[in-house]
Amino acid sequence: MNYKMMGRFMSRILLLEAVFMLPALCINLYETEWTSAMGFVWTIAITIIVGVLLSVFSKGYQKRFFAKEGLVCVAFSWIFMSLLGCLPFYISGEIPHFVDALFEIVSGFTTTGASILSNVEGLSKGMLYWRSFSHWLGGMGVLVFLLAFSSGSESNSGFTMHLLRAESPGPNVGKLVPHMKKTAGLLYIMYILLTVLNMIFLLLGDMPLFDAVCTAFGTAGTGGFGIRNDSIMSYSPYIQSVCTVFMLLFGVNFSCFYLLIIKQFKSIFRDEELKLYLGIVAGSIALIVWNLRGFYDTFEETFRHAAFQVSSIVTTTGFATADFDLWPSFSKAIIILLMIVGACAGSTGGGFKIGRLLLVFKSLRRSVQQIVHPQKVQIVRVNGQPVNEKILQNTNAYLAAYVIIIFSSFIVISLDGFSTMTNFSAVLACFNNIGPGLEAVGPVCNFGGFSILSKLVLIVDMLAGRLEIFPILILLSRTTWKHR
Amino acid sequence: MNYKMMGRFMSRILLLEAVFMLPALCINLYETEWTSAMGFVWTIAITIIVGVLLSVFSKGYQKRFFAKEGLVCVAFSWIFMSLLGCLPFYISGEIPHFVDALFEIVSGFTTTGASILSNVEGLSKGMLYWRSFSHWLGGMGVLVFLLAFSSGSESNSGFTMHLLRAESPGPNVGKLVPHMKKTAGLLYIMYILLTVLNMIFLLLGDMPLFDAVCTAFGTAGTGGFGIRNDSIMSYSPYIQSVCTVFMLLFGVNFSCFYLLIIKQFKSIFRDEELKLYLGIVAGSIALIVWNLRGFYDTFEETFRHAAFQVSSIVTTTGFATADFDLWPSFSKAIIILLMIVGACAGSTGGGFKIGRLLLVFKSLRRSVQQIVHPQKVQIVRVNGQPVNEKILQNTNAYLAAYVIIIFSSFIVISLDGFSTMTNFSAVLACFNNIGPGLEAVGPVCNFGGFSILSKLVLIVDMLAGRLEIFPILILLSRTTWKHR
Repeated sequence: MNYKMMGRFMSRILLLEAVFMLPALCINLYETEWTSAMGFVWTIAITIIVGVLLSVFSKGYQKRFFAKEGLVCVAFSWIFMSLLGCLPFYISGEIPHFVDALFEIVSGFTTTGASILSNVEGLSKGMLYWRSFSHWLGGMGVLVFLLAFSSGSESNSGFTMHLLRAESPGPNVGKLVPHMKKTAGLLYIMYILLTVLNMIFLLLGDMPLFDAVCTAFGTAGTGGFGIRNDSIMSYSPYIQSVCTVFMLLFGVNFSCFYLLIIKQFKSIFRDEELKLYLGIVAGSIALIVWNLRGFYDTFEETFRHAAFQVSSIVTTTGFATADFDLWPSFSKAIIILLMIVGACAGSTGGGFKIGRLLLVFKSLRRSVQQIVHPQKVQIVRVNGQPVNEKILQNTNAYLAAYVIIIFSSFIVISLDGFSTMTNFSAVLACFNNIGPGLEAVGPVCNFGGFSILSKLVLIVDMLAGRLEIFPILILLSRTTWKHR
Repeated sequence: MNYKMMGRFMSRILLLEAVFMLPALCINLYETEWTSAMGFVWTIAITIIVGVLLSVFSKGYQKRFFAKEGLVCVAFSWIFMSLLGCLPFYISGEIPHFVDALFEIVSGFTTTGASILSNVEGLSKGMLYWRSFSHWLGGMGVLVFLLAFSSGSESNSGFTMHLLRAESPGPNVGKLVPHMKKTAGLLYIMYILLTVLNMIFLLLGDMPLFDAVCTAFGTAGTGGFGIRNDSIMSYSPYIQSVCTVFMLLFGVNFSCFYLLIIKQFKSIFRDEELKLYLGIVAGSIALIVWNLRGFYDTFEETFRHAAFQVSSIVTTTGFATADFDLWPSFSKAIIILLMIVGACAGSTGGGFKIGRLLLVFKSLRRSVQQIVHPQKVQIVRVNGQPVNEKILQNTNAYLAAYVIIIFSSFIVISLDGFSTMTNFSAVLACFNNIGPGLEAVGPVCNFGGFSILSKLVLIVDMLAGRLEIFPILILLSRTTWKHR
């Protein structure tokens, strides 16, 4: 293990985190929320100290760096970032229990949006900003940010590739341009532009500036922390529609936006994942609108809620304009399915990912065809390109790990005695980085009632889901730590 | 497609089915249940006519036979067998709706044990016998029976291998002895002996002969149709314990019994699947007993119910001595997990199968190790033997198909508006060939309330589960029917 290299990297991430806390501190000061501000002051101080210590420790690091070290480094970075990022809540006393504060910030960074708070509006504005900003940072990834905008020697290709692969969602992170650092930069520029566009559209609907900034952060990261107790319910239909459109946009593979910029329109229309994504969204909305007939007063209202909830769940954002836990079983079944499906690979969304679903389907179809024509060599293709067998194998391994983690978490949190559906949907909501589940963790409820053990399990689930399982598995695997 | 060969095979299966109905008819005559008897008389007549017609059609068949034809043949055989096997219920009027009658017999043949009847005791004795016997026949497989005891020319090795593979549960059906026909024979002899032993133990507990026969059939096939409305609840603790032990025995890979006969004790103790199976059973019982403390009056009662339900669910039998839907969430979560896990490969039980679970775990572990040591060639081993990559691939494809079928069925049956847990557990209970689910399809309820569409979906699920998905997928695949 190249601990020094990992230490150096983590020191830079923590220093960056300290910088990112400054706007929240400024908001606290502007709003004269002194206790809250002190929470940030202390946290920034601690974070800088830890960062500097790590930096000193990592003096004289070597550049040799393997894939496993990339994965371990990413896992550790996220864990440290969360352990320090939760301190403002805890020190200021706005979230009195440490595990709760940790749950809240992990939920933020992993863009889950599941909260332990019953009264979000009771938080100070600085804290609300920090919560929402954690979504934005976690959405595209803090390591990717560092790669994009640092000038350090870390930006050598092999190293960055390992980190980018580990932190970016999806089975096949390609390079947009040959240079990894440039790819990371392009991703962030598009991300920032889309976020700003989202804010502008929200402001045009007379949303207050603070609300617009926080809502745009939550949408961009497909996170879902709201700043009101009723999420997006009490905003105007215009604002709800803006959110719907932007949630869907942030669920698209960012390479599609890049193709749009370089005017490769044909490639966009041919993208199988995008087509499947839009097909799933349109189909789900149509079926739910049909199933909800008579549930709301007007067709417009039905359509708006259906479109909003479908977009919110499939992109794993988790905002709510309606309590879908009250919808009929068929609509709820579709929502549960969407929870698992998730957004496109290479977007800020979570879940199993539509790209992976496509690979699983195609690989299954091949298995069937191989029984029918055993002598024929069959190749799985996506967008006309043959898919590497290694990627297919990894996708299947991912599915296995996915199912195993969901069921083992479900068993453990069942100890708390909540209903079976509550437990199952809580795991789905956390592991797929969505936020709300059903029944006792539905859109108008929260995760505060779980025991410490369950919260810790759900914290691990959120991290495993956001980092796509393998970094966490590698971290926990004996083989990784065995000396040879 | 070698339709003639398939026709010949199916004609023999139908004629065999007609013969197997005779005992039920005799019971009806002995009990002077005339309407019920006429149901069997008509069905036997129709089955013989169809069988003879198929036999005439298939004159001059060729022996060339491919894997896909084996799978299609098995799928068709089971469908025809069910379509004719449900007629006694329907013609006698004891189950007035055809789809209900079909559901009941498919549930029988597939050893599911899910019933649409609210009053089982209202059936005639001949029908009760037929229902339970269908479990016994379906448990080891009717094609295997034919292969074992026919002297026809079908018993050439390639052909029988295809059929045996398609009908027997588990990822890696091996031959016990070099000759396939002998293997099939040995399997059935062990099956018959164990069933008789089960009956004797039940009779020793003063169970009436008819009850003992039917209960042994239901246990041996890991089916679960009871002949009383309260399943096994009202029988003595001794009888419940006998059922527990025999359910567990029928969930064991039959090759272990063969090893026992030829005194290869070492190989039995080294069998990884058996060890995992016993470990899961013991662990689940222990956890449920702990979770149920205070729920029943005595420790003996708690242990008896926990052991019975764990054995019943993990072997996918579905008998009940307790309404586990009333148990606390943690126990229910374990029950749900056991529903999916299922019994050992090569047993009469259903579910995902412990052998497959072992392969999925090992293949996932390999994926993790390959990230850590990318240059090292890793081989998956079970019982010390390297596992073919093809089998690993198929296991992963199986998992994918398994998940996809469960969720698509869940969506469709949600249209009926039952609770989410009812729908989800109904699919699990049918697809894994268990029987009872939770809530509205719990151990003291039945499947009668579902719509015709849902019942048809669940019928397909039961068949797909019993035949291990691929025969049904091949049957429904366009590639299979394309002319080249």
